Amino acid sequence: MKGIVIVTGIPGVGKTTVLNEFEELAKEKGIKAKVINFGSVMMKILEEKGKFIDRDYIRRTSIKLQKQVQKEACERIKENLEEEDILVIDTHMFVQTDCGMYPGLPLNILKELAPSLIVLIESSPEEIVRRRELDKSRLRDKKMLSDVKFDIEWSRTIASACSVISGAPVKIINNEKEKQKEAAKHLLDCILKVLVS
Amino acid sequence: MKGIVIVTGIPGVGKTTVLNEFEELAKEKGIKAKVINFGSVMMKILEEKGKFIDRDYIRRTSIKLQKQVQKEACERIKENLEEEDILVIDTHMFVQTDCGMYPGLPLNILKELAPSLIVLIESSPEEIVRRRELDKSRLRDKKMLSDVKFDIEWSRTIASACSVISGAPVKIINNEKEKQKEAAKHLLDCILKVLVS
Amino acid sequence: MKGIVIVTGIPGVGKTTVLNEFEELAKEKGIKAKVINFGSVMMKILEEKGKFIDRDYIRRTSIKLQKQVQKEACERIKENLEEEDILVIDTHMFVQTDCGMYPGLPLNILKELAPSLIVLIESSPEEIVRRRELDKSRLRDKKMLSDVKFDIEWSRTIASACSVISGAPVKIINNEKEKQKEAAKHLLDCILKVLVS
Repeated sequence: MKGIVIVTGIPGVGKTTVLNEFEELAKEKGIKAKVINFGSVMMKILEEKGKFIDRDYIRRTSIKLQKQVQKEACERIKENLEEEDILVIDTHMFVQTDCGMYPGLPLNILKELAPSLIVLIESSPEEIVRRRELDKSRLRDKKMLSDVKFDIEWSRTIASACSVISGAPVKIINNEKEKQKEAAKHLLDCILKVLVS
Repeated sequence: MKGIVIVTGIPGVGKTTVLNEFEELAKEKGIKAKVINFGSVMMKILEEKGKFIDRDYIRRTSIKLQKQVQKEACERIKENLEEEDILVIDTHMFVQTDCGMYPGLPLNILKELAPSLIVLIESSPEEIVRRRELDKSRLRDKKMLSDVKFDIEWSRTIASACSVISGAPVKIINNEKEKQKEAAKHLLDCILKVLVS
Repeated sequence: MKGIVIVTGIPGVGKTTVLNEFEELAKEKGIKAKVINFGSVMMKILEEKGKFIDRDYIRRTSIKLQKQVQKEACERIKENLEEEDILVIDTHMFVQTDCGMYPGLPLNILKELAPSLIVLIESSPEEIVRRRELDKSRLRDKKMLSDVKFDIEWSRTIASACSVISGAPVKIINNEKEKQKEAAKHLLDCILKVLVS
């Protein structure tokens, strides 16, 4: 019952909060689960290569370098499966760059990871806009409601393509206001069902 | 002019009715066509393995077992091409499970089947809700209009991914109220055009 | 910094105008770029095979022949990379036929072309309808606003599948009324960023 689970969500859905709750919950229940941020692994690899860059800059960096680092990150992540039962990869369905929307999980990466489940954390567009306005810690563009709706749609269409390619089911989990514990529990339940089956 | 055609539709679009009319129409015209329900073939394989389960339960069964049986069903279906010219596979673009929306035709199955055409039977969301309320024979969840709209959308995005992967065109056929004969004729016409060309 | 860029747009977005501006702009800047119309290359191959047909008829021609010619067109296009730095392939995300919506760039073609960028030229649905009504030179069906909206949606979902399969980012460029020069400049900027990186 080992497996890789992809968890994505556009900025403002509260993905990090849900995943923190998830880790705590798994620990409580004695389940060997680890959440790994794909971007952080990529950054670490870049640092090792001598390129120190901030978190938001990574979105705007060289596409070719990004692709290469993406592959390396993938291999490094999979090494964790030796010690852990559940690997939750915290990532994005797509990354906005000046050159367009880059798929977070292209075919070659999906084949490498062979995920058992793809999760989209979602919130209502209005709630996402509210959270984005509260969060000043990141260099985020202030996006309008229509942009948020587009991002939700694009995440879903990319997820459906990832689903057909990998064979993994797509689960949409709503993270409503003040309900992050419920969302985390929902996530753990789904993962256990997929991996036990 | 032999070929496999995928026909899908979410519960309530009247897919079974259209396919019954289609079989009758093909018979009338002396065309060797057979409609095969993917789920029924899967169930039969499960029964042979000694696992008797009801039709609606199959949606909730083990994912891994489902995957394996899916592959076997695929091979068994293709054997029919020896005797038939047109194989219509009656299936779903996606299957709702507790673990999320499972793709009905993942990449490996698409490569196996190599369909010539992918058909989505659709109806208006309001008509689908009406039909679902009338049908008490199945253990269906009473879904709201917004859920039906979501299911139509998800079917389309999954279909578009299946189209790019297989190279097969996607045809949307509307099954309006009392117009199942027209829908069946439309389906046969499309199939003949694709397979003759 | 050589590469292939896919540029698509549904009829009425003004794709041809933008691409003409693009070619002029590239020439001005001394950039070796060439725009190749996928359909024209296919027609030329058909003519060489002794089948003279008009531009709009190609949409309705044999699917199998279309597939074969598609592959040959692909190879012929790639030969241009010896002399050019940027190859812009002017094509469609999907082609409407009597048999349904045929994917313009199925998996095998995407693997052959390995594009660096996928561009969707878009305009508002209202503007597209207006342009289609003005254009009488082609045998186009007069489509309603809802059909145009559907075509935009289908292009996007097909593009997202192409993105996951190829790993190329998707860039949506708006071609507003009288702003084709801006759209062309935007296109060139994106291409240069992708190919330099």
